[in-house]
Amino acid sequence: MEYNSTVCAVSTPAGTGGIAMIRVSGENAFNICDRIFIAVNGTKITDFKPNTVHFGKIVTSEINENDFKLIDEVLVSVFRAPHSFTGEDTVEISCHGSIFIQQKILQTLIAQGARLARPGEFTQRAFMNGKMDLSQAEAVADLIASTSAAAHLMALNQMRGGFSGELSELRRQLLDFVSLIELELDFSEEDVEFADRKKLKDLSKHIETKISQLADSFQTGNALKNGIPVALVGETNVGKSTLLNLLLNEEKAIVSDIHGTTRDVIEDCVNIQGITFRFIDTAGIRKTSDTVENLGIERTFQQIEKASIVLWIVDGVNVSERIEWLSEKIFKCAKDRKMILIFNKIDKLSDGELKILEQLFLPFKCEKIKISAKYRLNTEMLQEALLKLSGIKQISENDIVVTNIRHYEALKNAETAISRVIAGLSGNLSGDLLAQDVRECMHYLGEITGEISTDEILGNIFKKFCIGK
Amino acid sequence: MEYNSTVCAVSTPAGTGGIAMIRVSGENAFNICDRIFIAVNGTKITDFKPNTVHFGKIVTSEINENDFKLIDEVLVSVFRAPHSFTGEDTVEISCHGSIFIQQKILQTLIAQGARLARPGEFTQRAFMNGKMDLSQAEAVADLIASTSAAAHLMALNQMRGGFSGELSELRRQLLDFVSLIELELDFSEEDVEFADRKKLKDLSKHIETKISQLADSFQTGNALKNGIPVALVGETNVGKSTLLNLLLNEEKAIVSDIHGTTRDVIEDCVNIQGITFRFIDTAGIRKTSDTVENLGIERTFQQIEKASIVLWIVDGVNVSERIEWLSEKIFKCAKDRKMILIFNKIDKLSDGELKILEQLFLPFKCEKIKISAKYRLNTEMLQEALLKLSGIKQISENDIVVTNIRHYEALKNAETAISRVIAGLSGNLSGDLLAQDVRECMHYLGEITGEISTDEILGNIFKKFCIGK
Repeated sequence: MEYNSTVCAVSTPAGTGGIAMIRVSGENAFNICDRIFIAVNGTKITDFKPNTVHFGKIVTSEINENDFKLIDEVLVSVFRAPHSFTGEDTVEISCHGSIFIQQKILQTLIAQGARLARPGEFTQRAFMNGKMDLSQAEAVADLIASTSAAAHLMALNQMRGGFSGELSELRRQLLDFVSLIELELDFSEEDVEFADRKKLKDLSKHIETKISQLADSFQTGNALKNGIPVALVGETNVGKSTLLNLLLNEEKAIVSDIHGTTRDVIEDCVNIQGITFRFIDTAGIRKTSDTVENLGIERTFQQIEKASIVLWIVDGVNVSERIEWLSEKIFKCAKDRKMILIFNKIDKLSDGELKILEQLFLPFKCEKIKISAKYRLNTEMLQEALLKLSGIKQISENDIVVTNIRHYEALKNAETAISRVIAGLSGNLSGDLLAQDVRECMHYLGEITGEISTDEILGNIFKKFCIGK
Repeated sequence: MEYNSTVCAVSTPAGTGGIAMIRVSGENAFNICDRIFIAVNGTKITDFKPNTVHFGKIVTSEINENDFKLIDEVLVSVFRAPHSFTGEDTVEISCHGSIFIQQKILQTLIAQGARLARPGEFTQRAFMNGKMDLSQAEAVADLIASTSAAAHLMALNQMRGGFSGELSELRRQLLDFVSLIELELDFSEEDVEFADRKKLKDLSKHIETKISQLADSFQTGNALKNGIPVALVGETNVGKSTLLNLLLNEEKAIVSDIHGTTRDVIEDCVNIQGITFRFIDTAGIRKTSDTVENLGIERTFQQIEKASIVLWIVDGVNVSERIEWLSEKIFKCAKDRKMILIFNKIDKLSDGELKILEQLFLPFKCEKIKISAKYRLNTEMLQEALLKLSGIKQISENDIVVTNIRHYEALKNAETAISRVIAGLSGNLSGDLLAQDVRECMHYLGEITGEISTDEILGNIFKKFCIGK
């Protein structure tokens, strides 16, 4: 990968809109743009003050007073290295958001010597130029992909430094020790001990605790990032979809005006107090012939396997005659799952009927909630029960949560290595073997922050980015 | 419509991307943004120099050192009235392009007193604040929608003033005359003539010529803007779709890397030297039972009605036995259309066979081209023939072309009125009737530039804009 080239890409979402923004970054960004941009006051981009915006024209050919082809009237923002996102000279061109214009400007930039940026290349350059560490760079992609308050907050925390700064500092301290241990090896004949074993043990234990906390946070982080899977189970006509729509709409009502695209993105997901619950719709269990019905139920039970919470919805008015058989099967399958039993349509029930219903389901030990999806009765109770069962506490602005499986794996590997260091220190392991374990722990910590990185690791990370970021 | 409110909207295309831009415009734009933005150096937006860019944080609640919720790290550009697109104080917030963040920032701005902008409201404000006339405002929407070089150039010309400045000046001159004529009416007893009838006649004739030129340009403008409809007719397996793909791919090869969305937008359209040809695919005529076949042919013939050019593709190797019957029907239906007869698969033909083929089709008087879609033989000839038959010359940077049906209708109405003025002047029409015709012409010219506008006209124009522009 060469970084002395100047790259360009549309950074705004693909498609047509009021405005699109094309980013140009690299050592020739100013020169390349000067060849296609005519500022309204005639000033050259090279002479612009950094962090200023200028109105002008983008033209196709080399500028010539009498012969050029206007592409668009644009605003150009200028950032000077190292004070830009990438750390390089950067020009941001805000043009009219037609796809034709976006392509035309890109083609003109490419004709002048820029090349199209690869996915994530601007962020990768920011990483290579020391503007952020690798975990922060990964957080940029997470931030863009986040669709819930919790995922968003975790990505922001990680982007602002999060735990990686701390890991980097712990790694530096390990480095001091390992250098001393390795120095000892040069004097192996003399049996000296430069590295204070007591202090190394304290540091290792501190690191072990820290790593273990971080690794433990992954379960929460992963659930928050990807949503908590919830299976909706019930016979047809018990009000399953009314309930789901109710939950979905309450969340979406506010945002529906703003973007037509939202529905595609968070379809079947409900955000409750910033935590995403990902609803798995199961085939309603129908009363047809036994064979078909059983097939449907089997499929439903497969869905239950994927969920961490099961919502079993029962029509409070018409309790199915098959309820005992059904409940037995559901409870058997969902025995390791968290379960909420929901009695729907309670608006149609008298107090006496409610009592009978409660009596009927008394044998089942689980959370029970009586609702009316139609009249929106007690749906807040359901939301609170979901939050409680998820076991996930609200995270706050300074909570450190690992959300990235790559980080989690590196942390687990670092944990194993640091455990060996601690064991080795207790067992008076020889310096060279000890150093090897310390180096291994450092390696895995470094993989998180990017102090250790290979083209393969970088390739895997940045290929998931969109072009233009 | 109230214009003292401050409005906000996402101006970049809908969806997720690297960066999104939210525009805030209105007299409270600075104050509203100051309540949610913390610049990295602590400066207030109100104190920023115009046309500068600043890095900082967008937070949710009223700013409080210990208690605020970070939404995103952003770049903020500041434009001071009247030196902005809308002519009002404007803040442009470049945030990370997640839908979640875009919505959150909009919600926060709305909570602070901004309201969501209506479609085209930024442009409408630019018009209301005298930053552009109505025809220029309409060109902004055309520019964003343009998908070919020609449509793009016409929109740019119109946006830069195009003909509307000239119409505005002619209208002003008419106003001088009409004022004088109306002054005469006050002195009607005295039979004075303040308005020089000779000069008014010269002006009217000049206006008539100008309007007539502009109205004539509409046919070209409309074809260039919406594409020239071309019907592809032929039996199945003659190479129709190979040919279409060939034409489509040659155009798209360059751009396919840049945006995955392009295909959706210009699907079935081919740009040849900047002019869009819109291909109408017709059902291939199949050799099945006569009834079905005839139904297919009938439908194909309906498609021909919509086209202004017909491409009839014939398999040069297997000339159908039904060719005579078919050709008669095609020529009958396409008699008012421009036609190109294409012999495909000529790579498989000997010179002798080619001669026989030519002989066979000699009776048909139309452009004939021999190609091989598979081996890309003579496809440039086809492109040139299409260009020639379209009758449209390349337009250049200063050509004035009317593309808007609203303008065309206003021009035709103005033309009628100014003709009556000229006739009236020749026939010594009374001052009051003359003034009425002049006023009518002025009215229609004013509708184009927006000097005359009603809420209905404005509503119709701006509702077609996207939100954020």
